[in-house]
Amino acid sequence: MRKIIVLGAGLVGSVLSSILARHGCRVEVYDHMADIRETHLTSGRSINLTLCERGLNVLDRLGVGEAVRRISVPVYGRLVHDVSGSLSFQPYGNRQEAIYSVARGDLNRVLLDFAARHFDIEFHFNERCLEVDLETPAVVLKNLKTGEVTRRTAEMIFGADGAYSTARLRMQKKTRFNFSQQYWEQGYKELSVPLSADSWAAEKNVIHIWPRGNYMLIGFPNTDGSFTCSLHIPFEGPLSFESIKTEADLLALFENSFPDAIPHMPNLAEEFFSRPVNSMVTIKCSPWSYRDKAALIGDAAHTIYPSYGQGANAGFEDCAVLDECMDRYGEDWTALLKDFERQRKPNTDAIADLCVEHFVELRDLVGTPEFLRRKEIERRINRMYPDEYRDLYSMITFTRMPYTEALRTEREQYALVEQLMRVEDIEHKLNSGEVDHLIDGLMAARR
Amino acid sequence: MRKIIVLGAGLVGSVLSSILARHGCRVEVYDHMADIRETHLTSGRSINLTLCERGLNVLDRLGVGEAVRRISVPVYGRLVHDVSGSLSFQPYGNRQEAIYSVARGDLNRVLLDFAARHFDIEFHFNERCLEVDLETPAVVLKNLKTGEVTRRTAEMIFGADGAYSTARLRMQKKTRFNFSQQYWEQGYKELSVPLSADSWAAEKNVIHIWPRGNYMLIGFPNTDGSFTCSLHIPFEGPLSFESIKTEADLLALFENSFPDAIPHMPNLAEEFFSRPVNSMVTIKCSPWSYRDKAALIGDAAHTIYPSYGQGANAGFEDCAVLDECMDRYGEDWTALLKDFERQRKPNTDAIADLCVEHFVELRDLVGTPEFLRRKEIERRINRMYPDEYRDLYSMITFTRMPYTEALRTEREQYALVEQLMRVEDIEHKLNSGEVDHLIDGLMAARR
Repeated sequence: MRKIIVLGAGLVGSVLSSILARHGCRVEVYDHMADIRETHLTSGRSINLTLCERGLNVLDRLGVGEAVRRISVPVYGRLVHDVSGSLSFQPYGNRQEAIYSVARGDLNRVLLDFAARHFDIEFHFNERCLEVDLETPAVVLKNLKTGEVTRRTAEMIFGADGAYSTARLRMQKKTRFNFSQQYWEQGYKELSVPLSADSWAAEKNVIHIWPRGNYMLIGFPNTDGSFTCSLHIPFEGPLSFESIKTEADLLALFENSFPDAIPHMPNLAEEFFSRPVNSMVTIKCSPWSYRDKAALIGDAAHTIYPSYGQGANAGFEDCAVLDECMDRYGEDWTALLKDFERQRKPNTDAIADLCVEHFVELRDLVGTPEFLRRKEIERRINRMYPDEYRDLYSMITFTRMPYTEALRTEREQYALVEQLMRVEDIEHKLNSGEVDHLIDGLMAARR
Repeated sequence: MRKIIVLGAGLVGSVLSSILARHGCRVEVYDHMADIRETHLTSGRSINLTLCERGLNVLDRLGVGEAVRRISVPVYGRLVHDVSGSLSFQPYGNRQEAIYSVARGDLNRVLLDFAARHFDIEFHFNERCLEVDLETPAVVLKNLKTGEVTRRTAEMIFGADGAYSTARLRMQKKTRFNFSQQYWEQGYKELSVPLSADSWAAEKNVIHIWPRGNYMLIGFPNTDGSFTCSLHIPFEGPLSFESIKTEADLLALFENSFPDAIPHMPNLAEEFFSRPVNSMVTIKCSPWSYRDKAALIGDAAHTIYPSYGQGANAGFEDCAVLDECMDRYGEDWTALLKDFERQRKPNTDAIADLCVEHFVELRDLVGTPEFLRRKEIERRINRMYPDEYRDLYSMITFTRMPYTEALRTEREQYALVEQLMRVEDIEHKLNSGEVDHLIDGLMAARR
């Protein structure tokens, strides 16, 4: 049985370890954090995430899907807040489909707990990885409690150690490693909306969004009825994290842009001035593996913006594909890892690019009449052709279609909707025979 | 006087140190290599490079230009070898302009020697940089002879430590550092052509080139009449470094593709099988500085393919711009370094992209009839409008025009030449009144 060291006991590290162990590997997991099952996750850093079919599938296959759904809030659409406080609901899917909002810490606890209960996996916490020796392979670890430095060898090392992966840093020093990291000029801060008795609590199964041109506020529901919000604004410039220096600056922003949120955020100023600003980064690299000795997976291999809520889902999908590759290749890990990357890399590149586009859409377009008209046209086509036409968001969120195929289909469909957008007075004709006839023609031409 | 640590005593490190010292800074230089003035550079790794006006300018300003020209061979054009052994000469400029071929080791020796003689700079060799502390700032060094580890502080650290910069690696860990490294799928090996009595020696003032579709051989002259060649082929595939396993494989390649080179390469097989394959990488990053505490310069900030012979020139141009910034900003290093990057970054991005394009041109196009026809048209226009029209190569190589401007001008001119390429039978009409009239019209429209 192959002995494998997994760096990182986060979301992907936990699921990966379960899969490896299920295939009979001896697995040792090292993480620099304390065991999350014994602690509370520090507030203020990517607390909430959403899971969809793509990510839940492998969890169901492992047998932990139901436990995860129990700690999640199903969300059926976005509730858009305009400046006057008016609300409009945009369903995510056309079939009452839901995505699942879940706190990262809770999810990690459930996945770790599952791995530890069902498999013979060695978990080691408070172990910072100082060095990865790709040739042996081995890792050098420092225990953050005792200070002890140890060296552990294995037959293979998996870097599931996130966007700032130590394993990747080591592979980057090897010759011909292609790598890029590009930051968005905006950042975000987490702010909380505690449980309250008024209207918001009734709107638990939605994501709240306040799109405001080049900035926005977004709120994710928690199981207890509270919300976790992210304020997205530029790092620098006239309205930015840099420019908001006082409580008065902060209140002025909220009074002008998010007035209906203020009564729900009793700790706004305290949280804003005490919590870190998070940045968003796109990381791409290749190759993801070094012979049969080391490989990257999840955020360590591909980090994307949170705009589609796909980070964890893409990482879990990696695990699903790896699982299939392990069935196919047996002990030929060199070939296995090459095929894994061949299957996944074009898809994770595609979702990375889509996330950059979608963030712009969320921030700039969700509130505009053109965006709403486009969405209405798409919904009409989808109602007429439910099996042939799904919008990009649905393809990404409610199917397991490869991201590359979703991207290609979207490009085709965009051109189709563009033709309908050009019809004069389209907003008043959407349910007319004239437009339906046009849609029939366009869809027929597409086949 | 500000105390500055310079990492790297290579080409850019030597010139940078001289400039800093001339401005009154106290400069300490650390390099992991032995003092090149006391050793011979190991063979087989980017031995030859070419200098042009862009790079020589700052050397002249420092007073070391003439010493550099004395160890260089002026080169006036490329001599293209076809498979049959026929030669055709393509001048680089229209005015007998030369570029200067020089051995990297010799150049480094002259620059170091100049810096050490004229300025009070502390040079330390055999000191590997283990860590850069950006906050203090400080560097941790290990002496490779004694094993001693020391920590040195300064007011600022300059990373002139090349493509695999330790300083950059440290800055990369800071938040929001944009970075990319992309490798070419081809590599190259250095091969030597010793001095001989026959025809080649007479062609000393040219660069020899054997373009062969997706691979090539290129030879740079040395002062002693010998040449240093680079063989550029893919890393993997049917004709590749991987596929050439035996002396017979190697000879078959040369007999088929470079037959006239064989008699001039008595050590071909020995060198091929003992020397490393070099890779080509494009590295871009930003920001180049951290407050007024650390900055990157030269290859550490921007690594480009060697295809235009601009690597060292771009690094020296960095030094020239930094020199001007030091005059302008005095002790305000934060503003100085920001302005330095604002001036240089768009230009080094432009030359990076041009180098990727030019490498494809060199490899794929130099030998084709279309390429030659285009060059002839450009030469005709240039003869008619010597002050208004220069080809891209000339703008890059024989002027100090910013790379971005050279790129923009090239795009305009490309469109103009395209119009002439469409004239039927253009190759026989080039010196006709008809074509001259057309050129007059196009150039007038451009003004």
